[in-house]
Amino acid sequence: MSKTNGTNGTAAASRFDPNFTAAVINATGPKANPRLKQLVGGLVQHLHDFLRENEVTLDEYFAAIDMINRAGQMSNAKRNEGQLLSDILGMESLCDEITSTLAAEAADQPTATAILGPFWRKDAPAYAMGDSIVKGFPDADHTLMHGRVLDFDTGTPIANAEVDIWHTAPNGLYESQDPEQPDMNLRGRFHTGPDGRYSLYCLRPTKYPIPDDGPAGELLGLLDRHPWRPAHIHFIISAEGYKSVVTQIFDRRDEHITDDVAFAVKESLVVDFAPRQGDPKGKFELEYDFKLVSFEAGKKYGMPGAKNA
Amino acid sequence: MSKTNGTNGTAAASRFDPNFTAAVINATGPKANPRLKQLVGGLVQHLHDFLRENEVTLDEYFAAIDMINRAGQMSNAKRNEGQLLSDILGMESLCDEITSTLAAEAADQPTATAILGPFWRKDAPAYAMGDSIVKGFPDADHTLMHGRVLDFDTGTPIANAEVDIWHTAPNGLYESQDPEQPDMNLRGRFHTGPDGRYSLYCLRPTKYPIPDDGPAGELLGLLDRHPWRPAHIHFIISAEGYKSVVTQIFDRRDEHITDDVAFAVKESLVVDFAPRQGDPKGKFELEYDFKLVSFEAGKKYGMPGAKNA
Repeated sequence: MSKTNGTNGTAAASRFDPNFTAAVINATGPKANPRLKQLVGGLVQHLHDFLRENEVTLDEYFAAIDMINRAGQMSNAKRNEGQLLSDILGMESLCDEITSTLAAEAADQPTATAILGPFWRKDAPAYAMGDSIVKGFPDADHTLMHGRVLDFDTGTPIANAEVDIWHTAPNGLYESQDPEQPDMNLRGRFHTGPDGRYSLYCLRPTKYPIPDDGPAGELLGLLDRHPWRPAHIHFIISAEGYKSVVTQIFDRRDEHITDDVAFAVKESLVVDFAPRQGDPKGKFELEYDFKLVSFEAGKKYGMPGAKNA
Repeated sequence: MSKTNGTNGTAAASRFDPNFTAAVINATGPKANPRLKQLVGGLVQHLHDFLRENEVTLDEYFAAIDMINRAGQMSNAKRNEGQLLSDILGMESLCDEITSTLAAEAADQPTATAILGPFWRKDAPAYAMGDSIVKGFPDADHTLMHGRVLDFDTGTPIANAEVDIWHTAPNGLYESQDPEQPDMNLRGRFHTGPDGRYSLYCLRPTKYPIPDDGPAGELLGLLDRHPWRPAHIHFIISAEGYKSVVTQIFDRRDEHITDDVAFAVKESLVVDFAPRQGDPKGKFELEYDFKLVSFEAGKKYGMPGAKNA
């Protein structure tokens, strides 16, 4: 598919000005941050190679710019369409893989990471142990979720770790997308006790299509792709002295477990919900432990951020 | 700089999932438009290669998404920040080169093209032959510009061709950026007479820095690049039966003639303004002919758009 066989080869072999890309990259001045200079230079080289290899015309270019501008215009505190647009092209999942590989290259994996996605909100309500994040939906699949937050290297329970959880309602909508739900419904923050344990009630999650009323949905339609994310629950797990983990767990029974529109599923994050008897508050149960790497231990893995501890 | 030496080589040699990019590209369905499938596939391959080669982290990714969303949020009918952001990376100039190369591959060049830029506005006022597009600025360098619009192949004058012109005020601002100027100042549309001639008064143009209050200016600052465009005048020349030309002319005396922030200068578009004597309406004069390719003649060059004639 790609005709790239070395940067200089591509430029020299094409019918277009062989010096143009170097001129753009070399316009960068001596005071630029070296990492930023590397990133923008690499991006310009690849974008220009893409334009030349595919002979992208101005009409096609303007259509793409228009799509990007419209994504920004739709974005606000509750919606990040730019992120959604790049999620469906696998960008966030790939950066997540890169970041977690850098974090744990020399070690077995702590809890695997997964993309944040565009629906996380800051300052979800803080709940007490055993509370439910669900308001409404009496007939839905309420679930007791519990487990521990552990130090990945020592297995020691971590006290006062924060479990930040968010998921959709049975209609597939996050509360920020759904005027029928109370503000901050199905979002909450819990803190582990001295034994590292947390417990909460949530819903067994529901698959949903990503919003199709913006450029991301438009692009999926044009690519003849389905818009479905398999049923999942989002988490950010954090604790003082530990590297935070952004992750998701996925319901094994979901029909889209192998073809997530956002390319975020990893086998170690696929879970089985168990039926639960005799609990009027929940029909299902899920036990799940999260494992965090301490900044101290992270140093031996060359983990980014460890130096800031 | 780039480690790319063939798509498969890159993926196989890296520490990251070698199947990921193919999975994203292959998610495209059978009903997708083939050209769109090619473009998105090529873009995904290059963007993923860029992310892997430079080991782009989530923090860096989120910073880029934020910049793109903010560009969209600043854009409106008068401002196109997304376009500006990609102009400073040479994207529009490269697409312009590709498009004009495709248009005239087998022929000598008609009037060279240059980028539209983000400041063109639809429906500029229609003026009569010899009118001035300038309101105010009595002490500025008023200039008589005149010439012909010609058929590139036959040299025949083209009657009733439209010359759409726009440029900045001496303060470097387009009227759409400047609350002090009347609406549509320094913009106008003229039509050639039966002899193919046009004439108008405008200003000798002024160099200006592109707006630095958005993500484009921010990126220039981070790259330690200057924000200057050399003094230029924008044109769209169109006539029934002819392929329109989007172009600019540049003032040779400008100090930034060799380092345009938008990489749009071509030697054939650099002009010399002549002093003009005895005209109370203008201190300078510029004679310039525009040459258009007819759709009929364009067919022999394999020109895009020719099939629509």
